Amino acid sequence: MIMATIISGTAIQTSCSTNDNNALVSDTNNDNAIVESILTRTSVRAYTEQTISADTIELLLRAGMAAPSAVNKQPWHFVAVTDKDKLAGLAAANPNAKMAEKAPLAIVVCGDLSKALEGVAQEYWIQDCSAATENILLAAHGLGLGAVWTGTYPKEERVAAVKDVLKLPETIIPLCTIVIGYPEDQPNPKDKWKPENVSYNEFGISSL
Amino acid sequence: MIMATIISGTAIQTSCSTNDNNALVSDTNNDNAIVESILTRTSVRAYTEQTISADTIELLLRAGMAAPSAVNKQPWHFVAVTDKDKLAGLAAANPNAKMAEKAPLAIVVCGDLSKALEGVAQEYWIQDCSAATENILLAAHGLGLGAVWTGTYPKEERVAAVKDVLKLPETIIPLCTIVIGYPEDQPNPKDKWKPENVSYNEFGISSL
Repeated sequence: MIMATIISGTAIQTSCSTNDNNALVSDTNNDNAIVESILTRTSVRAYTEQTISADTIELLLRAGMAAPSAVNKQPWHFVAVTDKDKLAGLAAANPNAKMAEKAPLAIVVCGDLSKALEGVAQEYWIQDCSAATENILLAAHGLGLGAVWTGTYPKEERVAAVKDVLKLPETIIPLCTIVIGYPEDQPNPKDKWKPENVSYNEFGISSL
Repeated sequence: MIMATIISGTAIQTSCSTNDNNALVSDTNNDNAIVESILTRTSVRAYTEQTISADTIELLLRAGMAAPSAVNKQPWHFVAVTDKDKLAGLAAANPNAKMAEKAPLAIVVCGDLSKALEGVAQEYWIQDCSAATENILLAAHGLGLGAVWTGTYPKEERVAAVKDVLKLPETIIPLCTIVIGYPEDQPNPKDKWKPENVSYNEFGISSL
């Protein structure tokens, strides 16, 4: 049964439909603000002219570095971009990042292979940096900003173009460009809950 | 300057040290509960005997599916495991997942290649599923649970072992096993803030 609950001082509309992503259950007394934030975050691609303070940029970077990483290697490097020419360069480097040209900020999340694990485990940098990226997206949402993840790696042409814009050394590989600003409007989050994407205990078993 | 602020009704100790991960800045009036949660999450590997309700499991899965994905392909499948024998199987499949044997829940986050993009872009499933994993870890933390990400892919032996335990078909690739329970104790979060991991506008430039 899905129960009504109050989250972060906001009454969330609830229902018994299994397809209602706002139907947050509460069988604990814990604060569900984080869950609410995860479920309401969505990609934001249009921003106001408002700039983002250095303190807020630092907070986004702290959120990124708080991500878990394999064997705690922290194999990442972040490039925070506010320069208009560089933002235009990032927009040109990736057809999905055109909005960077009019954004006040982009954070390019990179793998630092000099800090990564060795052998096949080197590839964990991709997962680690993806977790860092999601942290930054969620932190942006929590701070009233809007953001969008635009993919770079493993598309070689995009990787080369971003490396050129930011003068990245050989061992620093750009995973993605997060474009960030104060939202021009508030797009509705998508409802992506699909019970068919879950199995229980074994593939194809649809309930506990 | 780092300013004192009140987050989620909790006074956070602040300082001007750039190495204090709790020095959350506030130059907006927005709720920083999400940022606080991101900065205080840490891996939890020991759990009480308390089981996790089906509603809470659903909430964790909803958080996972709320992640962004390349071209919104949502190329994922989640296996929620509460069966003791299956949990023991997951513990045996991965030397870093031994705690699964005594945990009430594991969620195995998988890529579903039948839903993924084609060509080189197929690999975006790894990033998408990593974002989903981070969402689940953060949701667990917000709900008073503790969790740890144990890596599977790309280690072939672990992938094969997990596929065998969960009877996964060819196109479903286990990325990781998230082990989850109510925490036996509360480990302190690591401070992973490293200013040297940031460049501004171009590699090697250390301030805006």
